[in-house]
Amino acid sequence: MSAPRTHVIGAGLIGASIGIGLSAEGWSVTIEDADEEAEALARSIGAGRALDGGAPDLVIVAVPPSFAADVVVSSLDRFPGAVVTDVASVKAPIAAAADASGHGERYVGSHPMAGREISGGMAAQGDLFKARPWVVCANGASASAVETVTRLAHALQCDVVRMEAGAHDAAVARVSHAPQVAASAVAAALGPLEADDVALAGQGLRDVTRIAASDPGMWADIARLNRSALVATIDHIIADLEDIRDADDVGEAVTDLIERGRVEVARIPGKHGGAKRDWTPVTVVVPDAPGQLLRLLGDAAAVGVNVEDITIEHSPRQPVGLTTLHVLPARAGELAQALAANDWEIAAP
Amino acid sequence: MSAPRTHVIGAGLIGASIGIGLSAEGWSVTIEDADEEAEALARSIGAGRALDGGAPDLVIVAVPPSFAADVVVSSLDRFPGAVVTDVASVKAPIAAAADASGHGERYVGSHPMAGREISGGMAAQGDLFKARPWVVCANGASASAVETVTRLAHALQCDVVRMEAGAHDAAVARVSHAPQVAASAVAAALGPLEADDVALAGQGLRDVTRIAASDPGMWADIARLNRSALVATIDHIIADLEDIRDADDVGEAVTDLIERGRVEVARIPGKHGGAKRDWTPVTVVVPDAPGQLLRLLGDAAAVGVNVEDITIEHSPRQPVGLTTLHVLPARAGELAQALAANDWEIAAP
Repeated sequence: MSAPRTHVIGAGLIGASIGIGLSAEGWSVTIEDADEEAEALARSIGAGRALDGGAPDLVIVAVPPSFAADVVVSSLDRFPGAVVTDVASVKAPIAAAADASGHGERYVGSHPMAGREISGGMAAQGDLFKARPWVVCANGASASAVETVTRLAHALQCDVVRMEAGAHDAAVARVSHAPQVAASAVAAALGPLEADDVALAGQGLRDVTRIAASDPGMWADIARLNRSALVATIDHIIADLEDIRDADDVGEAVTDLIERGRVEVARIPGKHGGAKRDWTPVTVVVPDAPGQLLRLLGDAAAVGVNVEDITIEHSPRQPVGLTTLHVLPARAGELAQALAANDWEIAAP
Repeated sequence: MSAPRTHVIGAGLIGASIGIGLSAEGWSVTIEDADEEAEALARSIGAGRALDGGAPDLVIVAVPPSFAADVVVSSLDRFPGAVVTDVASVKAPIAAAADASGHGERYVGSHPMAGREISGGMAAQGDLFKARPWVVCANGASASAVETVTRLAHALQCDVVRMEAGAHDAAVARVSHAPQVAASAVAAALGPLEADDVALAGQGLRDVTRIAASDPGMWADIARLNRSALVATIDHIIADLEDIRDADDVGEAVTDLIERGRVEVARIPGKHGGAKRDWTPVTVVVPDAPGQLLRLLGDAAAVGVNVEDITIEHSPRQPVGLTTLHVLPARAGELAQALAANDWEIAAP
């Protein structure tokens, strides 16, 4: 079966990246954007040709989330032979609009889960979604419509995850939208501190607040579209924080919350979807000089120890960093000895 | 001036590590613990000798935070010629107790800021604190007492930071204690999700909740001792979350919070205490096989590009990971080209 003739609406980063990726796979792709310049740019970088009057088999709506429902509904009307999908990160309101249009059997929701730090429409890349999950919400769609969108995701080398739209929205509120808000609230609470006080920050604060550096970008749209699930999650978080604030014994309340949180963190999948492996950290003092990290990994490889993960903690005032190599527990002792023998200073785990 | 004769009270991880570190520097160290077995273990691993009746010049109290004030006060009495310091991560209540004892001129608060994930009394290492900040709170201490404790921190190769005890406690509430609580609350809010839903987690959630995996350990003590600063910070966070929950326009409220959070995140120092550098990410698809990371860094080094930081994002279901090399913006394009020429698949930033 030949690839579906595909039309992309929206030539921003996501739409243009999809166009480039599908074109590279030999798909016939057209692309349009309400902004003529954006459309011309997308065509010039190989994201698709101009729509030529031919009827597409598949329409991909890649517009800002607040416009997605309207453009999906108008596309179902405009291209009566086409399967329509969209890439917004909230799915239930768009599915409801598609159903209400009477053409729900041709609408399939998509959520390609690219990294959060992406922005800027000129940075399109065909492999933007490679190796990332692509959520497919079938809703009231026909089996062949779902098959078409699944082909799309596979063509972009994504990992397809089937979900119900409401379950998707409830899940992303808890795994993505509320964590973003909470990270920003933790960062905002640094406000009263002097610069010297903020300098006491360790890796823990850096990790918690890393996504708080994100561009506000589409978060307003996302919050509006997923308000009830977001607010339900925030209420959950507020209730836990209030329990600590109001506890007779704040120590007991903190212990209880940390213990409940640990149970949940253990459910977050690690590498390859398995339960998080219990790697053992080996922490090394690494001078900030070119090639040191390479030498460190070379010394680890020389004793045949596979490094599963790396974290680098920068000392706030000294020209060294602490680099932690995460390895299988059975190999950690051997690795530490071998590194010490190569004049590395081993620090605490 | 010869090193102060030093007595350590408390042979857990922190006390024993200090004993080992100072002994390695040639200091005369004695160590005691209420638990005879712990004391014997500490002596056997070189953390210090038994107290022999000689009068120490410096006493280091390394007991659980809830006992620190009592042991500091009793030590000021018991060793009338000694400077006394303690290592608890909350300082004002202990300083107040020392002042009230009438011997405040001989008490200096310390907070050596080791990594959070450390636990277990048998894992003592002499370089536990190497390259970490060591906060010194002078309070009502004499200049010579402060000088003695500063020597201690320098002997352990720490980076000394002078702070007032109350300012320290307010700061660590915001940079450490409240972020721990908030991370646990974000993790606990995953409770209602099915396993498949949790599997949608991306690197953002993993970062936000990493410290939520910490052992509850001393957090109960810390929360009790620093309750007012912790609650003030939690109140700040709750108020921001309530603003979002109750906003007429949730989109506007989220945008406002993210923008305020970004301003604060930019104040968290990066490598070497400077403002966070604006590194540019180059993301590469790395197969999960031994030696791949080494090959990647080797290829980066071959074109002379220094890798400032690395993050590894594990794909939840596929046998590849996305590895991001953070480099100077001027070198990112060149690095990406060189890696692509070496058959690396470059993914999105």
